[in-house]
Amino acid sequence: MKYVENLLKDYKNGKISQKKVIEEIKSLPYKDIDFARIDHHRALRQGFPEVVYCPGKEADEIVGAIKEIKDKNHIVIATRADQDIADHVMDKLPDSIYHKKARIISYGKFPKPAAKNYALVITAGTADIPVAEEAIITLKAAGIKTKTLFDCGVAGSHRIFKEVDLILNASAIIVIAGMEGALASFIGGLSSCPVMAVPTSVGYGASFGGVTALLGMLNSCASCVSVVNIDNGFGAACIASMIVKQSR
Amino acid sequence: MKYVENLLKDYKNGKISQKKVIEEIKSLPYKDIDFARIDHHRALRQGFPEVVYCPGKEADEIVGAIKEIKDKNHIVIATRADQDIADHVMDKLPDSIYHKKARIISYGKFPKPAAKNYALVITAGTADIPVAEEAIITLKAAGIKTKTLFDCGVAGSHRIFKEVDLILNASAIIVIAGMEGALASFIGGLSSCPVMAVPTSVGYGASFGGVTALLGMLNSCASCVSVVNIDNGFGAACIASMIVKQSR
Amino acid sequence: MKYVENLLKDYKNGKISQKKVIEEIKSLPYKDIDFARIDHHRALRQGFPEVVYCPGKEADEIVGAIKEIKDKNHIVIATRADQDIADHVMDKLPDSIYHKKARIISYGKFPKPAAKNYALVITAGTADIPVAEEAIITLKAAGIKTKTLFDCGVAGSHRIFKEVDLILNASAIIVIAGMEGALASFIGGLSSCPVMAVPTSVGYGASFGGVTALLGMLNSCASCVSVVNIDNGFGAACIASMIVKQSR
Amino acid sequence: MKYVENLLKDYKNGKISQKKVIEEIKSLPYKDIDFARIDHHRALRQGFPEVVYCPGKEADEIVGAIKEIKDKNHIVIATRADQDIADHVMDKLPDSIYHKKARIISYGKFPKPAAKNYALVITAGTADIPVAEEAIITLKAAGIKTKTLFDCGVAGSHRIFKEVDLILNASAIIVIAGMEGALASFIGGLSSCPVMAVPTSVGYGASFGGVTALLGMLNSCASCVSVVNIDNGFGAACIASMIVKQSR
Amino acid sequence: MKYVENLLKDYKNGKISQKKVIEEIKSLPYKDIDFARIDHHRALRQGFPEVVYCPGKEADEIVGAIKEIKDKNHIVIATRADQDIADHVMDKLPDSIYHKKARIISYGKFPKPAAKNYALVITAGTADIPVAEEAIITLKAAGIKTKTLFDCGVAGSHRIFKEVDLILNASAIIVIAGMEGALASFIGGLSSCPVMAVPTSVGYGASFGGVTALLGMLNSCASCVSVVNIDNGFGAACIASMIVKQSR
Amino acid sequence: MKYVENLLKDYKNGKISQKKVIEEIKSLPYKDIDFARIDHHRALRQGFPEVVYCPGKEADEIVGAIKEIKDKNHIVIATRADQDIADHVMDKLPDSIYHKKARIISYGKFPKPAAKNYALVITAGTADIPVAEEAIITLKAAGIKTKTLFDCGVAGSHRIFKEVDLILNASAIIVIAGMEGALASFIGGLSSCPVMAVPTSVGYGASFGGVTALLGMLNSCASCVSVVNIDNGFGAACIASMIVKQSR
Amino acid sequence: MKYVENLLKDYKNGKISQKKVIEEIKSLPYKDIDFARIDHHRALRQGFPEVVYCPGKEADEIVGAIKEIKDKNHIVIATRADQDIADHVMDKLPDSIYHKKARIISYGKFPKPAAKNYALVITAGTADIPVAEEAIITLKAAGIKTKTLFDCGVAGSHRIFKEVDLILNASAIIVIAGMEGALASFIGGLSSCPVMAVPTSVGYGASFGGVTALLGMLNSCASCVSVVNIDNGFGAACIASMIVKQSR
Amino acid sequence: MKYVENLLKDYKNGKISQKKVIEEIKSLPYKDIDFARIDHHRALRQGFPEVVYCPGKEADEIVGAIKEIKDKNHIVIATRADQDIADHVMDKLPDSIYHKKARIISYGKFPKPAAKNYALVITAGTADIPVAEEAIITLKAAGIKTKTLFDCGVAGSHRIFKEVDLILNASAIIVIAGMEGALASFIGGLSSCPVMAVPTSVGYGASFGGVTALLGMLNSCASCVSVVNIDNGFGAACIASMIVKQSR
Repeated sequence: MKYVENLLKDYKNGKISQKKVIEEIKSLPYKDIDFARIDHHRALRQGFPEVVYCPGKEADEIVGAIKEIKDKNHIVIATRADQDIADHVMDKLPDSIYHKKARIISYGKFPKPAAKNYALVITAGTADIPVAEEAIITLKAAGIKTKTLFDCGVAGSHRIFKEVDLILNASAIIVIAGMEGALASFIGGLSSCPVMAVPTSVGYGASFGGVTALLGMLNSCASCVSVVNIDNGFGAACIASMIVKQSR
Repeated sequence: MKYVENLLKDYKNGKISQKKVIEEIKSLPYKDIDFARIDHHRALRQGFPEVVYCPGKEADEIVGAIKEIKDKNHIVIATRADQDIADHVMDKLPDSIYHKKARIISYGKFPKPAAKNYALVITAGTADIPVAEEAIITLKAAGIKTKTLFDCGVAGSHRIFKEVDLILNASAIIVIAGMEGALASFIGGLSSCPVMAVPTSVGYGASFGGVTALLGMLNSCASCVSVVNIDNGFGAACIASMIVKQSR
Repeated sequence: MKYVENLLKDYKNGKISQKKVIEEIKSLPYKDIDFARIDHHRALRQGFPEVVYCPGKEADEIVGAIKEIKDKNHIVIATRADQDIADHVMDKLPDSIYHKKARIISYGKFPKPAAKNYALVITAGTADIPVAEEAIITLKAAGIKTKTLFDCGVAGSHRIFKEVDLILNASAIIVIAGMEGALASFIGGLSSCPVMAVPTSVGYGASFGGVTALLGMLNSCASCVSVVNIDNGFGAACIASMIVKQSR
Repeated sequence: MKYVENLLKDYKNGKISQKKVIEEIKSLPYKDIDFARIDHHRALRQGFPEVVYCPGKEADEIVGAIKEIKDKNHIVIATRADQDIADHVMDKLPDSIYHKKARIISYGKFPKPAAKNYALVITAGTADIPVAEEAIITLKAAGIKTKTLFDCGVAGSHRIFKEVDLILNASAIIVIAGMEGALASFIGGLSSCPVMAVPTSVGYGASFGGVTALLGMLNSCASCVSVVNIDNGFGAACIASMIVKQSR
Repeated sequence: MKYVENLLKDYKNGKISQKKVIEEIKSLPYKDIDFARIDHHRALRQGFPEVVYCPGKEADEIVGAIKEIKDKNHIVIATRADQDIADHVMDKLPDSIYHKKARIISYGKFPKPAAKNYALVITAGTADIPVAEEAIITLKAAGIKTKTLFDCGVAGSHRIFKEVDLILNASAIIVIAGMEGALASFIGGLSSCPVMAVPTSVGYGASFGGVTALLGMLNSCASCVSVVNIDNGFGAACIASMIVKQSR
Repeated sequence: MKYVENLLKDYKNGKISQKKVIEEIKSLPYKDIDFARIDHHRALRQGFPEVVYCPGKEADEIVGAIKEIKDKNHIVIATRADQDIADHVMDKLPDSIYHKKARIISYGKFPKPAAKNYALVITAGTADIPVAEEAIITLKAAGIKTKTLFDCGVAGSHRIFKEVDLILNASAIIVIAGMEGALASFIGGLSSCPVMAVPTSVGYGASFGGVTALLGMLNSCASCVSVVNIDNGFGAACIASMIVKQSR
Repeated sequence: MKYVENLLKDYKNGKISQKKVIEEIKSLPYKDIDFARIDHHRALRQGFPEVVYCPGKEADEIVGAIKEIKDKNHIVIATRADQDIADHVMDKLPDSIYHKKARIISYGKFPKPAAKNYALVITAGTADIPVAEEAIITLKAAGIKTKTLFDCGVAGSHRIFKEVDLILNASAIIVIAGMEGALASFIGGLSSCPVMAVPTSVGYGASFGGVTALLGMLNSCASCVSVVNIDNGFGAACIASMIVKQSR
Repeated sequence: MKYVENLLKDYKNGKISQKKVIEEIKSLPYKDIDFARIDHHRALRQGFPEVVYCPGKEADEIVGAIKEIKDKNHIVIATRADQDIADHVMDKLPDSIYHKKARIISYGKFPKPAAKNYALVITAGTADIPVAEEAIITLKAAGIKTKTLFDCGVAGSHRIFKEVDLILNASAIIVIAGMEGALASFIGGLSSCPVMAVPTSVGYGASFGGVTALLGMLNSCASCVSVVNIDNGFGAACIASMIVKQSR
């Protein structure tokens, strides 16, 4: 840090005032760095392009954001897009696709998934499938091979045992469940890889919009379970894609 | 209700004032009944003698209550008794017994359990056993045959399958679990009788002293599960004893 | 488990690799079981056919599920069906019936209720009746004789005493109440059979959509009360039907 | 408000600066009042001397406060006093009395209660009695005739009917209950005067230290019930004393 | 209770079976009472006719209930009625009146308020006025003289001091406030009569639909404040009417 | 307080009754002050004219309030105005302006901001901008120079460092963030002036409508952070304007 | 499933009763499997031996459990052990070691960590270190190379940048923070691998024993963050060890 | 950023591998900055030396931290120190002083407070004084003139009016209150400077350890009120000191 040494010399020699020195020193550590490029490096750093989160953005802002990211990436996805937003985007970007259940707009070509290792997406009930679809499209955009097991509620646990090999051989598992969220503990007790649990807002009354499932998953007696926000299929898929990529 | 007819006649004839009539009518439905005996009939009505709930009572009040109930019953139990209370009671009533893990004092002779039909008490972990003991002593005092399955957490679900006959043949099941409470859903999916779920205060952090288990059990995807208060092994046993008795 | 013995022999003799053995052993306990039939046996096991829970399912999925279950059962019910779903189902399955207050679609012939023993359904107020209807149709589908006591709020407790015989002779009681939910304790103090308490979302302000009633019921000073989720008339009826059947 | 008129005249005549005027006007409404006497008039205004609330005060501060109030009143009470505080106060003020269950220190002579009209204090269980005692001593200090009904839980509702006249003739009723707090609704349905409900911290698990009782009471289906803070027997007694005094 | 004596004699003499005796004894305390008249006496007992609470009732049920009560009372009110319900009722009962802000339908002639003593209704802000109107119409239906002070938020406390006589001379005060609900404490510190605090759902964010105001009022440092449910202007008015009537 | 002295003399001399004296003394401290002018002095006291808060007011009431305040101020703002209200106001007051994103109606001329010192408004994401606009218009109405930094979420912390001088030289900072609200701590660690944190209702699931951000901000490890209500851009701006004014 | 075919044939031929067939079919899917060995295979399946969780177990039970697991593993750890438990265990198993800050007892030889790839454990403050120690000992027992960064609170974010290479090269990161938990988002924005966030109970007031940190982490704006229970350093380490092992 | 240009040239010329380039680019923005000095500049930046927060630190760590900070500052304070910690520190640093009520250890010479402008600290009750002391010592350490108003609960609002000049002339006000926290709104309505509200854990029952006061303050109807964590007198004082310093 030559700059600081010179600064202090100048001060001692009376070239600059004490006030000037203090001011410079205060802001020093944050200055003089070219951050401009950092955002486009995110794909390198996290194995994933930046994603457009739609809520709170206007349709034209979303179109603009998609186009900007697309310039430096093969594929962009925009999450939590409702039908109106999707119609607007598809109108402006005719090659974009709206994955309705997943509420995702994709723009660009999905990469070919690597042959080796896969993420497994498991849901407790039919109503959890939209969240699963959000995870699946996200994994697809990250180039991850993905397998699925739908409608495996813990009250019908025998259904799961037929598929135990699928569970035992996965590199990362996403468990998606509402109500009491017990499926995460159950799968966690069988699996040999990390389980990302996604509580869903499925349920009524004392399910409190997913809070009960969330709490249940956080208290899982299986030690390989970690949890993301309610209905956050996207986040679980980001983590799963990192794990699967590292495992190859 | 002759009384009312006479009352009104007297009023018409001027024997009593209007004010008097109104006063009488107001309180009428609640008067003139001998409720004194009702409490001793509880054993007849609910198949269970009155129980002494210790917290908030002084040691001598508990001794007095036990003796009073004992006069009309073969056995009395006092629940949630800590060691100090127990020492005091056993000092005053030398034939009483303190079931330490269950925190129950019993006084009198346990009835011989009926040979037919049984209640099954299942716990998720070692730390849930005190609540299970409360349930077991209570069932014993009610003359119910009881079987147990301890340490069957859902993350080790295979342990349960060995005992599936025990589950399928029970007349009532009590499932006792802390943390995420998923065991209730799991057992509920296998059983063919009502499941009384008892959340326990076992756990830490986001288990919130049993609230998470409680919420999980209330949201059970298995439709035969109902829930009692946190750590309420006694209540679950009361209901189970009613069900088993009716099933004989 | 001959298979394991042979497996290990083969390994010792060099016929299979160590890796192969470990892989086999890992998945062993869950393999080679024919679970396919289990679901259709649910009616045998729990005295109740599978039920279609409508929320989160599309109309055609519901029609498909109803038809599939109906093939192996005399009657199917689909719960929490709104008018749109009901119209669609009745269009596709002209013999189906929509029980509007109960929000249940039934398809098939209700069984003749057994003459002996009955479940009693009690509500605190007029607004609790839809939940009661859900319970009543469910009990009817299970072939349970059902009696009702509507509009018995605890603040008008004298109304209940006229019907005390109805309460004392029931085999199972379902109490449905919103606001403070005190009716469950009150009935629990009179009854001689298990009481399934259903909190309802009836109320405003600090009733918190049924949470206050739920908490009140969980803390009932009557020891024969257990609780199901808010507005869960269906679940209470399932448990009541099990108890009544066992009591015959 | 001559002062303001003069102030403005002086300003126009240049005697004072604009700044001075603005400053004066800003604080005007709050100035020049002799508040000094107001606190000693509280007994006149609310029919009750100031009370010393002990928590957070040191023992000597409490002694000082008691003495200061006593100078202008016949009786002083200090609430929520634990044994240590009480010992210290009784050491310094030998005529003071410690009402242990009520956790109240009284100093001075209790007034003779008025013969006419009474407050009724009802508790659900034995454990609620300390809160009741706090209310009873407070009422006594206010010169209110007080009657009591202890141990009247709603699950044993028949016990109450024997005493219905006591309820119907009261001028104010205090209902003290923990657990589900249903007693408030029940009494509210029978009474013809205001009911002050006091939730207590009696209970365990989902009673949440009195919150469940509090919520239940706030949602009472009886329209004459209002609620004070958990364990606040003192507050309920203050209100009851006002009502009884006004009713004479 | 001659009946019981005879019952037991008959049993000893073999005229009736043991089973019969037990059955009779179980239901004894609740039998043989004529509750039929009790509901029409409510007006006598609580100084107020029964009221129709509209939510959860269908329009025709409401019309029916109003007519039935009207037969025995001069005036009926139906609370929480929305415009649709009101239109239907006014169509069927042309003499009924819809008090729109209060959401109350009245049917019959309001009594002339007693000249002596009054209830005072105070609101913190403009948005609290609908709840105040509910209280005012209710008081009017009960024949209580009513005065009002609107828009007196604590942050402009000086506004209140001008009206301090109105506060000091009231027999009962209803304070209606949302947000932090501090007005209740402030008025409680000035008043010499009971204060019924009504939290309102006015506010946003951390006001949690009135919960913050509710909690603030329950913790009031003024000892004459009790609280009713959020937005429950009706309940506060019922209690105030009782107090004012007793104070005459 | 001559008045009191005379009052007591008159009493001693028998000119007035004891009752009269007590009555006078009770209300004394609050009497005889001219509060009428106080509200128009608010602009002097807090450097800010009174503001019209729209929710719960009818359109005409809002127009009336705006006009009344405008008479004594250069500019009035009305906050939380939706489009319907705005249309009505602009129709009646054609010179008023609707700032749509900020949901503020302004009427009158914005003051020229002082050249010296500025408030800095920082948002975490695009969706937080409406709250920021509410703060910005409010600051503008108070004559405060304002700078902005939008879309600076903590997960992309490097973006902030480029602007560290802007942060270090501000006199007051408003940080607006939803989700986890971590931006407040981050900025608080860099800034040398008070930080007003505004949690927003941006987010989903366990963001609980802004509660998570609120709690995070309250627990900030940076000691210069204080917090206002969820989405309360207006309040944060009021405080910031006071600080900036004092700092000049 | 020959067994079932034979069963039905036997039934048709009258060799067994219908009741017998139904009973067999009910329990069929769960029967006849040798689960006995499954627990000892856990080390194979999850790369980790079974661990003894101490709370709720008596000292001798813990000793027994440790010995039993040790027979089949090189190392056993017992978590959440307080000093008393540790003293007892070390007395009975003299070679065991008590890691006091981590509250872990280890028994046996820690494996040599693999040279390749490491987990990084980061804490926000000094008070979070015990939870970090629990994670570190757990990782050590699993043979994972571990690096640490302590005392990196987000309010002093510049401290972290010096260590950015450590973050960028990790295979799994554990972030441990109390109070607002913002560190997880901050690290998540820099890292290229999964981040396991552990909220701690460090803090006071509105930190609610870790709930605020927990909620903040669940709402992280960084998409690679998942969360475990409050203070659950052990669970985070289990997941991290799985990820690091897979990444080799 | 010459470095990056050279880096890419070297890559094109084959001097370094592609992998090397990517690695360098990833970490680039965070490298090569001398953060070492930043912490000692905190006193310059925020007008306050670093403070030692004691909880979770061992006594010797605290002594070490105090000494290290003292080397570069005239005064150090250590907050939330209990008696044991204080004894240990005073033993090791004989010149240190323990301010017991404030739970602060100071070491070094308090600066002479500036003559101009002051902070005002107001408490609602006696029990809030320890939090006030924490604020006062903190302000003293920052060289701020401080005035106090103790025991000014809103239910005795007239006490405050005598001191209205003290309020109107302050540069920053700290309001400290438990229970319902209404004092913040009340003072906020009178003051002309920012009010930092500190909720305290004073109260019982539904005060929830300060949460009710916290919520009340966040919903204050006075627009100049912002809030810090429960019992956080230190934080409020830090902000107040910044405001007072800027105002000089």
